[in-house]
Amino acid sequence: MMGLETARQLDRTDPLGAFRGEFAMADDGLVYLDGNSLGRLPKRAVAAVMTTVEAAWGVGLVRSWDLWLSLLRETGDRLAPLIGADVGDVLITDQTSVDLYKLADAALHAMQRPDIVTDAGNFPSDRYVLAAVADRAGGRLRTVPADASADSIAHELDEQVGLVSLSHVAYRSGAMLDIEAITAATHAGGALALWDLSHSAGATPIPLREAEVDLAVGCTYKYLNGGPGAPGFLFVRTDLHDELIQPIQGWFGHRDMFGFLPTYEPAATIARFATGTPPVLSLVGARAGIEVSAAAGIEAIRAKSVAMTSAFIELAETALQSRGFMLMTPRASDRRGSHVALSHPESWRITQDLRDRGVIVDFRAPDVIRYGFAPLYNRFEEIVVSIEQTAEAVDDRTFLGYPDARRGVT
Amino acid sequence: MMGLETARQLDRTDPLGAFRGEFAMADDGLVYLDGNSLGRLPKRAVAAVMTTVEAAWGVGLVRSWDLWLSLLRETGDRLAPLIGADVGDVLITDQTSVDLYKLADAALHAMQRPDIVTDAGNFPSDRYVLAAVADRAGGRLRTVPADASADSIAHELDEQVGLVSLSHVAYRSGAMLDIEAITAATHAGGALALWDLSHSAGATPIPLREAEVDLAVGCTYKYLNGGPGAPGFLFVRTDLHDELIQPIQGWFGHRDMFGFLPTYEPAATIARFATGTPPVLSLVGARAGIEVSAAAGIEAIRAKSVAMTSAFIELAETALQSRGFMLMTPRASDRRGSHVALSHPESWRITQDLRDRGVIVDFRAPDVIRYGFAPLYNRFEEIVVSIEQTAEAVDDRTFLGYPDARRGVT
Repeated sequence: MMGLETARQLDRTDPLGAFRGEFAMADDGLVYLDGNSLGRLPKRAVAAVMTTVEAAWGVGLVRSWDLWLSLLRETGDRLAPLIGADVGDVLITDQTSVDLYKLADAALHAMQRPDIVTDAGNFPSDRYVLAAVADRAGGRLRTVPADASADSIAHELDEQVGLVSLSHVAYRSGAMLDIEAITAATHAGGALALWDLSHSAGATPIPLREAEVDLAVGCTYKYLNGGPGAPGFLFVRTDLHDELIQPIQGWFGHRDMFGFLPTYEPAATIARFATGTPPVLSLVGARAGIEVSAAAGIEAIRAKSVAMTSAFIELAETALQSRGFMLMTPRASDRRGSHVALSHPESWRITQDLRDRGVIVDFRAPDVIRYGFAPLYNRFEEIVVSIEQTAEAVDDRTFLGYPDARRGVT
Repeated sequence: MMGLETARQLDRTDPLGAFRGEFAMADDGLVYLDGNSLGRLPKRAVAAVMTTVEAAWGVGLVRSWDLWLSLLRETGDRLAPLIGADVGDVLITDQTSVDLYKLADAALHAMQRPDIVTDAGNFPSDRYVLAAVADRAGGRLRTVPADASADSIAHELDEQVGLVSLSHVAYRSGAMLDIEAITAATHAGGALALWDLSHSAGATPIPLREAEVDLAVGCTYKYLNGGPGAPGFLFVRTDLHDELIQPIQGWFGHRDMFGFLPTYEPAATIARFATGTPPVLSLVGARAGIEVSAAAGIEAIRAKSVAMTSAFIELAETALQSRGFMLMTPRASDRRGSHVALSHPESWRITQDLRDRGVIVDFRAPDVIRYGFAPLYNRFEEIVVSIEQTAEAVDDRTFLGYPDARRGVT
């Protein structure tokens, strides 16, 4: 079992060790295990955003739009290999929930079937979006139990169901669903598959091509380190571009956006899923984050991620189980993403105490703590420290916590 | 008529003269008359964005979300007085076209009437959005001639029409519609009124309250100087908050966003029109721009705007009419916004030539040039220079222009 010396040895020989230097680190010894909510700041994002503000906006002004339109096109292409997508099938635009709305609505409309299937482990915001889309289509959102399987999905499918939409990695438990088996079952039932990759993009390879996934969305501010509220991405399989008409039809999705034609005609490319002017400063942040992940390589990221979550789980079972913690995340490494969820009756108090101790983890009501491991900047040493500090926090009954139990953002 | 000396005298006594110093100006003598596309960079935006990147993101990390959620709430309140809205009725979120989609869809749904009326002068992207919304509702978009009046709208209204949506100031001609008369006619016909304020917010007072406007949207990167792609805003009259259910239902619009409840329950406030995580860096830019406009005061901005467009029109009629230009913007100052449109058969060539001469104006196919006057940083001297340079550009037949006729973004 990993001790502090072993952890430091692993850090010294870590093939991704140098990537920590790509991130801005305040000299405060903070153990940041919440990259699954908001990733750290890549140093290159500072320079990229500043150049965009001072030179492109401040000096170039409207003349910079050629540059920004290229940025918009190219950033999706840059992300594509990281999520197993073909170049030309990915667009960075809007908030993730808006991307989900566009694709879910387009899918039901194309399929002429009104129901959507999801599972109870999906992120609540996704469930709200999907329920509203199904409702407007005259159907309903059907929910199978958390951690959906090919069987539980297949059982729910019938000719009313046009779409299955699930999170690849569950925001709460960290469970990774079987994207290939579930997508195959979805297709066998005559529906389209729409995956939310928010908790897997940048943390693990995603077999979009191999699984023949139809549609996907995700966010860029977690493991992709794109910055607070950086725009989401959407993926549409090449042969579906022509089939789908998204509902929010604006000029950025027009085949001739500067032609100012009186009626909407969708672009032939992935651009047809765009609507209006993208938030350039936030897009520049997303681009910087994606570049760092691309330089590291997603296979190396996943290898370190598995090593980190495995070591954490092993230590937690020894040091924390006896203190009342339960593991909520699958033990099999191929069935989980890059965060580990533990439950404890006093999770809220412990999370606040850990914050005071310089360990940032994430509380999820009523009793879950998420420990997120971002292979690009987290160190094995931080695993040992977080376990030790958690144990001390549980034992230290003097800490009373903060009044607001609802901190944190996924 | 204004000559260079008079113009300089006006600049010296300009009550808004000091505000030019609030903006980053490269020492290049650029005459920038395209603030109606992308406003200049406020110096305070540089500091605000940098602090957000380096301190709030880089050091505060996920702990900064309390700050950013406050920013989201407060920025709408800060904008409200500039557009004649009550505090609590304005939200900064999403792209302007997405905001338009949300409100138009919610309006038709609440009214249970499927048709929308607009005019041919409305921005094409607005027309695309509205047409798609009407189509999904089982209705259609009806289009009256450009520069709609209360009469032309009233004539089109019947019990199929749930919404009238127009631009307050037309993106192309610069004509300002009679928001009070048209809104009254709309209400008399039993429909709701949704105004796009993109070309008037930050340039002129808007009588949202006096006109009893129901709904509005607009962008923050033109006269509000919020930066490229800064998020749009939406306005909903207080007593309509409860009546309207917007279609893109995400956690930021939930009455208890961190409660992670299984079903969507909209917030009681303007927050119910939000969806997901906002693009923080771009939101910070919007906030900085709004602060500068708020400090100047919208009445003073409008007074200078009218003086500038009036002086420009007078000079253009003397120096440019004889060279083949036609005025496309209303001569009555209370019927126009803050840009003036001229048409000329060689507008594209002239626009490109002017760019080489250090005068940035905006070409709109096939033959229109827009001269935009941003009272916060443009000077009267620049009016004289732009007229002189335009005359010289027309006369200088040696310039052949660039290959791309489609430059520029509204």
